[in-house]
Amino acid sequence: MSDARLIYLPLGGAGEIGMNMYLYGYGPEGEEEWIIVDTGITFPDMETTPGVDVIMADIDFIQARADRLLGIFITHAHEDHVGALGHLFPKLLAPVYCRKFTGYVARNKMERTGQDPEQVNVVGAWPHQVKLGPFQVGFMPIAHSIPETSALVIDTPAGRVMHTADFKADKSPGVGEPFDPDLIRSIAGDGLQALVCDSTNVFSPAPGRSEADIIGPIRDVMREARGLVVATTFASNIARLRTLAQAATDAGRSVVVLGRAMNFMLEAGHSTGVLDSFPPVVPVEDMHDIPRENLLVLATGSQGERRAASAQLARDSYMGLELKEGDTFLFSSKTIPGNEVSVGRILNQLSEKGVTVIDDSSDRYHVSGHANRPDILQMHDLTNPKIVVPMHGEHRHLSAQAKLATEQGRTAVVAPNGTMVDIGGDAPEIIGYVEAGRTYLDGNQLIGALDGVVRDRIRMALRGTVTVSLILESDGRPVDGAWVESLGIADASHIDGGLDGALEREIDSDLEEANRKTLLSDEALELLVTRACNRICKALAGKKPLVSVMINRLELD
Amino acid sequence: MSDARLIYLPLGGAGEIGMNMYLYGYGPEGEEEWIIVDTGITFPDMETTPGVDVIMADIDFIQARADRLLGIFITHAHEDHVGALGHLFPKLLAPVYCRKFTGYVARNKMERTGQDPEQVNVVGAWPHQVKLGPFQVGFMPIAHSIPETSALVIDTPAGRVMHTADFKADKSPGVGEPFDPDLIRSIAGDGLQALVCDSTNVFSPAPGRSEADIIGPIRDVMREARGLVVATTFASNIARLRTLAQAATDAGRSVVVLGRAMNFMLEAGHSTGVLDSFPPVVPVEDMHDIPRENLLVLATGSQGERRAASAQLARDSYMGLELKEGDTFLFSSKTIPGNEVSVGRILNQLSEKGVTVIDDSSDRYHVSGHANRPDILQMHDLTNPKIVVPMHGEHRHLSAQAKLATEQGRTAVVAPNGTMVDIGGDAPEIIGYVEAGRTYLDGNQLIGALDGVVRDRIRMALRGTVTVSLILESDGRPVDGAWVESLGIADASHIDGGLDGALEREIDSDLEEANRKTLLSDEALELLVTRACNRICKALAGKKPLVSVMINRLELD
Repeated sequence: MSDARLIYLPLGGAGEIGMNMYLYGYGPEGEEEWIIVDTGITFPDMETTPGVDVIMADIDFIQARADRLLGIFITHAHEDHVGALGHLFPKLLAPVYCRKFTGYVARNKMERTGQDPEQVNVVGAWPHQVKLGPFQVGFMPIAHSIPETSALVIDTPAGRVMHTADFKADKSPGVGEPFDPDLIRSIAGDGLQALVCDSTNVFSPAPGRSEADIIGPIRDVMREARGLVVATTFASNIARLRTLAQAATDAGRSVVVLGRAMNFMLEAGHSTGVLDSFPPVVPVEDMHDIPRENLLVLATGSQGERRAASAQLARDSYMGLELKEGDTFLFSSKTIPGNEVSVGRILNQLSEKGVTVIDDSSDRYHVSGHANRPDILQMHDLTNPKIVVPMHGEHRHLSAQAKLATEQGRTAVVAPNGTMVDIGGDAPEIIGYVEAGRTYLDGNQLIGALDGVVRDRIRMALRGTVTVSLILESDGRPVDGAWVESLGIADASHIDGGLDGALEREIDSDLEEANRKTLLSDEALELLVTRACNRICKALAGKKPLVSVMINRLELD
Repeated sequence: MSDARLIYLPLGGAGEIGMNMYLYGYGPEGEEEWIIVDTGITFPDMETTPGVDVIMADIDFIQARADRLLGIFITHAHEDHVGALGHLFPKLLAPVYCRKFTGYVARNKMERTGQDPEQVNVVGAWPHQVKLGPFQVGFMPIAHSIPETSALVIDTPAGRVMHTADFKADKSPGVGEPFDPDLIRSIAGDGLQALVCDSTNVFSPAPGRSEADIIGPIRDVMREARGLVVATTFASNIARLRTLAQAATDAGRSVVVLGRAMNFMLEAGHSTGVLDSFPPVVPVEDMHDIPRENLLVLATGSQGERRAASAQLARDSYMGLELKEGDTFLFSSKTIPGNEVSVGRILNQLSEKGVTVIDDSSDRYHVSGHANRPDILQMHDLTNPKIVVPMHGEHRHLSAQAKLATEQGRTAVVAPNGTMVDIGGDAPEIIGYVEAGRTYLDGNQLIGALDGVVRDRIRMALRGTVTVSLILESDGRPVDGAWVESLGIADASHIDGGLDGALEREIDSDLEEANRKTLLSDEALELLVTRACNRICKALAGKKPLVSVMINRLELD
């Protein structure tokens, strides 16, 4: 096997934040065996993906090699690492491995998509290893904002690779295992073959702070607030939920949890035993019996999601709870780029209600779950890798971590989604590129990003549509006039019959002047009608819509 | 006229950032005479306003009173203050007043919309006053990021009001007049009746820095850069263009300007004589003769606009100029909330090219054009108003400035768009509410936000469309089968004829089973077809599209 290669191939997460999916392969060219690390999703937006439910990596490459796919490893239970599992599993059909808490969430993903939850194998932490073909994979506990997050220690004949997953260098993360330099050093030994390392916070210059640093300021908010306190954060940030709940308890407040996702995460935490130090939670139905000044409400929707508890509380009310002047709303979270407008909407609605808002601008009530620049450098030092592979980040983040590494005299490679890199040698070698597209869950279908469906939606949203129905005798003579229905285009209401009426008259008059050859050709007729529509719409509305023409030809009886 | 009231009524800009439009009225109820301050626009987005070109205030209220509208005053030439002038002028037909530089831009707005530019009257700065009915209005020079920005001094029988416009407390703004506390104090005398004051930066706790503070750091960037330097900022931030050009000249770089908007603003500046200290600009066609290390390119598109020079340079090339490793790209600007994703796209494209990016995170290369919290307080102190009316800002900004004022023992009122406030007495009195909607420029039409046109576009984008064409004999018998065309919905390609085929079969079969009464009723038939479409689409695509049914009934010959 001297011609065997150790391949790193990101399909998602490298060149973006979110949608993590990484392949590792080992073997001679064309005979590699593969494992997948993480099956994450990312979220759609109106600008590029209207109507789409969820976005995941295009797995054509690995699906075509599914017979040599040995297993799927999930590092932790965040949506951008586990969210696509149930949707993609039927195309992969390989056993899934993860730790207990992650397994609880992963099995739920499988169940909700009609897959067999028993395909998810719960395994122990390092030093336990899963042996699959040329790979031995261990889950090394590492600190992040969700319990049991694990870096993967991937042993191969070409050496040991560490895939950090999302991590932070927090020795007191509240919930989940602490960052453990000794453990990392002992696993790295004289140095790893390769370190594949989280890049998202590489532009944050100061060392990351600890979860333990923020309980004091949060406790002060809870104590000083006169009325009700609502706090929001990511539902899956269980460490933060515990910090908030603990601060509330210290301040004499009972804790209520609003929102499905948060309740599910707490249930997962309790069921798997990772939440033994969590203060008691009051059932929602008892919430109204507690004086406002003795209550903390934990609410979903820190990113301004319209249907989450926070947005509903800001807009109106939720479960009978209405906010008012004297109440306090704490964002114990960071606004993800792209969500500023949605979050701003909530801030203003709360302002209208007279609620005191404490947002994330002060940095006192939130710490990130990711390693900052000095923490990333520390990880490089602890593991002393032959090769540094920045992962999870936009291109600029990957590029900045690679720069950091090379400044320290290390070898690094920037490998965005689809880049196939041999990381088994002394230096990384880019050995090919794979089409790294996106797959959309749309309703109950998986569609390709380039299928044209979403493109048509965007065109309709920008330009509106005009549909024209024509009926013609078999000799080409029009029966009645054209029938036009427009949608999403300004109506020319000052004109008789509006825009549709004007379009019908123009088409009818063009049809009258058309010769027999045109009338007998669907293609020519469609062109004639489309041109008439464009002409009139351009004049009356100033834009050209999407025109579709339905030509019905009557058969001779 | 003892029953006369002095009315402040914001139609735009109060409850949002952008789209500034404020009314002032004076007179007895029902007989008020009015002036308008600013006619701004705001920009659409795919989420709420797909396909819309520009958004402006709904002017129904003042249009209905246009016979008592005395004049339109424009404080400065930013789009969110002057952008709607040409579109709204035909409905208002009142004379426009502004200073020379603003007038150059305002006349261009009029020309481009087919209005008479001579309706724009250029007037001198304070102490000159325009006398219109009960109002005497003076343009008091104040510092901002565009030349000749002016606070309006509005004298009325009920006292003197100052409308600050956008301003900053910068005594060395580079271009345009400095902030002049003595002038403000002298105009305020013992105290204003009301101060209507910019709120946008009320959450910035430190005093605003001066434009003069950033030329040093920018000069360092220009000197240290090895290759080409591209700098972007708002096209209309002429002070910044001058700072950048001056720093370039100091660093031995020639200046080229790319982008229509920037060239127009410089032309306006030169034509009106406000730019006498601007370094020479090299024509674009000579750009390639200059070594990269001796060139600064000023480029439009600091907010990531897809068609602007910056985006094109990041994507590919612009005017034959291609960026490469060793070049530097400087964002001398702040990213406006909502534009993070577009700007991020550029950052990553530049990263892929190996271009060094200096973004706005360091705060060393940009200062805001707006007054920070201490500057706002200084304005309150200088003018000592009976009433403080926070304007230009989201609700939370207005509310925060009002809180600031009341903490100092002043009287303040939060009046979002549509709130009619009598500011002529000792305390503000809310005397009514006006529907404060939005008008969209869509192609060549002005449409109302609630007309349903945009709602239909959003529904099409989220759900897709299905159009069904049916032909029926006059007795109700279907002629041929149904014809279905779907757009923007996942195709069921595993089924014969795909989604459209499945829909046609279902509709045909339902029609076969339908009774004569149903077949003869358009309404019943439409319901039957819509239900069939929803059923099949829900099953095969997992979502219900917008269905439109075109029923053609053949007449008996």
